[in-house]
Amino acid sequence: MNTLQIKQRTNRLKTFMKDNAIDVAFISNFENQFYFSGLKAILYSRPILLVIEKEQESLVIPTLEEAHAKEKTDADHLYVYHEVENRKGGMSYHEQVDTVISKLEPGSTVGIEYNALPTDITLKLMEQGFDIRNIQNEVATMRAVKSDEEIEAMRHSGRLVSNALEQTITNTKAGMSELEIDYYGNEYLFKEVPKHFPNSTLDYFVMSPSGLSRTNMPHVFSNTRQLENQDIIIHSRQVGLNGYRAECERTYFVGEPTERQREVFNVMVRAQQAALDFIKVGVTAKDVNQQALDVIKAAGLEEYVVHRTGHGIGVGFHEEPSLRFDNDLVLEAGMVFCIEPGIYIPDVGGFRHSDTVVLTEQGTEVITDYPKNIDSLIIR
Amino acid sequence: MNTLQIKQRTNRLKTFMKDNAIDVAFISNFENQFYFSGLKAILYSRPILLVIEKEQESLVIPTLEEAHAKEKTDADHLYVYHEVENRKGGMSYHEQVDTVISKLEPGSTVGIEYNALPTDITLKLMEQGFDIRNIQNEVATMRAVKSDEEIEAMRHSGRLVSNALEQTITNTKAGMSELEIDYYGNEYLFKEVPKHFPNSTLDYFVMSPSGLSRTNMPHVFSNTRQLENQDIIIHSRQVGLNGYRAECERTYFVGEPTERQREVFNVMVRAQQAALDFIKVGVTAKDVNQQALDVIKAAGLEEYVVHRTGHGIGVGFHEEPSLRFDNDLVLEAGMVFCIEPGIYIPDVGGFRHSDTVVLTEQGTEVITDYPKNIDSLIIR
Repeated sequence: MNTLQIKQRTNRLKTFMKDNAIDVAFISNFENQFYFSGLKAILYSRPILLVIEKEQESLVIPTLEEAHAKEKTDADHLYVYHEVENRKGGMSYHEQVDTVISKLEPGSTVGIEYNALPTDITLKLMEQGFDIRNIQNEVATMRAVKSDEEIEAMRHSGRLVSNALEQTITNTKAGMSELEIDYYGNEYLFKEVPKHFPNSTLDYFVMSPSGLSRTNMPHVFSNTRQLENQDIIIHSRQVGLNGYRAECERTYFVGEPTERQREVFNVMVRAQQAALDFIKVGVTAKDVNQQALDVIKAAGLEEYVVHRTGHGIGVGFHEEPSLRFDNDLVLEAGMVFCIEPGIYIPDVGGFRHSDTVVLTEQGTEVITDYPKNIDSLIIR
Repeated sequence: MNTLQIKQRTNRLKTFMKDNAIDVAFISNFENQFYFSGLKAILYSRPILLVIEKEQESLVIPTLEEAHAKEKTDADHLYVYHEVENRKGGMSYHEQVDTVISKLEPGSTVGIEYNALPTDITLKLMEQGFDIRNIQNEVATMRAVKSDEEIEAMRHSGRLVSNALEQTITNTKAGMSELEIDYYGNEYLFKEVPKHFPNSTLDYFVMSPSGLSRTNMPHVFSNTRQLENQDIIIHSRQVGLNGYRAECERTYFVGEPTERQREVFNVMVRAQQAALDFIKVGVTAKDVNQQALDVIKAAGLEEYVVHRTGHGIGVGFHEEPSLRFDNDLVLEAGMVFCIEPGIYIPDVGGFRHSDTVVLTEQGTEVITDYPKNIDSLIIR
C-alpha cells in the first residue's frame, strides 16, 4: 500500500473529525483498518483496533502481528498485547484498549463505527464518560470515491476475474461438482498472477450454485453437488489484487435450457444492459436501480426480484453506495459498481450476470469482460 | 446440519437462559448462528440476527437468504427485510430488528455477545430500557465440547487437510510462488472431496509465508513471492467439511537448511511433541501451554515465542479454550485442539507445526497426519 495514499486518507478523516469536534477515532472494521493503515491482518480470534488522533495513529495488535504491522504501516505507536508471560506491556487486548482509553482527555468525543465496534468497548467508553459519535457513514463515503491508483488496481482485478471465470465456464462438464468447476478458475489465478504481479496479494472468492433449487439461493457456498445435464449455474467470482476487488458473474447452462429459461435469461440480460447503459456520473443510485427493474417489470417478473440492482466495490466485497430504490445519492467520478440485477423463479432457476464498472468524467468503463448472450453460455 | 443436534444445542442455551433470568438471546456472531440454527450465510453487507426465546426461534434475514433459511433451519419465524419496494414487511435490517424488539416484554433481559453485537443494536436496547447481559462466554463454553457427530466430521477434515498439505509440500519447487504451492493442495480438495462427500460443503483456508522475513509474520496471506533455494516455508491449512474444521501445518525447506535452522526446527518439534504427549482429559489448559514452553525455554529460545501453544477448533478457525498461560480450565472429553507452538527468529526464520487432537475418555487422538521430522521436510 502506498504510504502517501494512506496519509491522504487519514488526513481527510482528521479534517472531518476536526470539523465535527471528534477527538479520536476508534476504527474496528478490518476493511477500514486496511484503508487507513495498510495493514490487512488475518483476524481469527485476535482483535485489532486502529486509533486515529490529531497528532498520531496507533494500533492495538497481538504480538504475532507486530512484525507485520511494522512492515506495512506507519503507525506512530503499537500497543502490543502478548500471549506469553513476563513481557512488557499488556497481556490482553482489553488491557491494551484500557491503556489507550486511559490516555484520552476526560470527556473526549470518540468516533466509532456503530455497525462494527463490539459492545464491550462501547460500554467501556460510555461508563467512563466519553461521548461517542457514529462515523461509519463518513468512512463509507470516503471509501466510495476511488483514487486513480485504486482504480488501476481494480482494472487488473477486472481482467483477472474475467479470465478466471472463462476458465471455469469453458471447462465445465456434466458430472463435475460445483467445487471442481471453481477449481479451473482458481488454478488460472494461482498460476498466472505470480508471473505478472510480483510481491502482490491475491484475494479470491468464488461460488457456483447449480440446479433449480440452489440457483434460487443467491448466496450459498459451492458444495459437492454434481452437475447434471440441463443444469443452470450461476458462477460468481471476485478477485482482489493487492486488496482491490472486481466482480464478474455469469449464468450459464450445461446442455440446452428450456424455452422458459431462455425467456427469463434474456430479460435478465436486457435488465443488466439497461442499467449499464444508464449509469454515469450525475445520475442517482435509485434511478440506476430502476432502469433494471423497469425491464423486469415490463416482462411481468417483478415478483421474482429479491435484491437491489448493484453495489459499490473496492476494499470490500460489497460497499457503499448501494444501487437501491431508496438511495437518492448522485453518483460521482471515481465510484465503482457491480451491476447485477437478478431474477429468481422456483422451478425455473436463478438468473444473474454481474459486471464491474468505473465511473469517470469521460464516461463509464466496464472493467470485466465475458460474453453475456445465451448462445455463448450454453455448454454443449 | 442435523436438526436434532440443533435442537439439543438450542435447548441447552434455553436452560442456561432460564437459570439466569434471561428472556431472549440475540445471536449475532455468524459462527454461533450456524451452531444454533444450521444457517451458514455468506454475509457480505447484509446482517443477520438469530433471536432465541423460550417458545420460539426467529431470524432477521434479507430476502436473498429466505429460501436458504427455509431449507437449512427450523426457525419458527423469519423477519425478512427487502430491497425491493412494495413488499410486505420491513424494508431494512434495522426496521425488522425494531419489529423484533417491539414484541419483547418491556424490561426484558436480553442476552447478547459483547464481543460481537454491534453498537447500534446495543444502544437501541439500552435506550428502550432493556437489561443486557453478556452470554458470549456461555456460548463459547458450549461450543468447546463437541458431540460424537461433530468429532466424526472433524476426523474427515483431519484426513483431508493432511492429504492436501502433502500435495502442496511434495509438489513444491524453487521458482514457484506461495500461491502456486497452495494450489496443489486446493486442487486435491476440489477434485477429491466431491467424489466422496455428496451434498457437502467445504471450507478451506491456506497460507504459506516463505523466506526469513515472511515466516516471521505468523499470519499473512500467501502472495506472489517466488520461492528461492534454501527458503524456509510455513505451510498452514484448515479444511472444514460441512462446517467442522481441522488444521495441519508444517514448516519445511526448499534445499538444505542451515545448522541454526536445524537446531531451532528440532526444538520446535520437541516442544510440539511435549504438548501432544501431555494433553489429555483432566489437565489444565495452562499446563499444556507450559509443556511446550519449557522445551523452548530449556533451549534458550523463549524470547522468540509470540503466541500461545494452541487453541480450540470446530465451527471457528480459532475458538475456546485457549491453551494460554492464564487459562486454568480443566480440559474435558469432547474438546478439540490445535497444538502449534511457534518460534520466530529474525534472520533465522519462523518455525511452527500444527496438529489437531481430539480428547476422549479413552485417550487423545491426533486427527491430522504428516511427518514432522526435518529429513521428511526438506525438498531436494
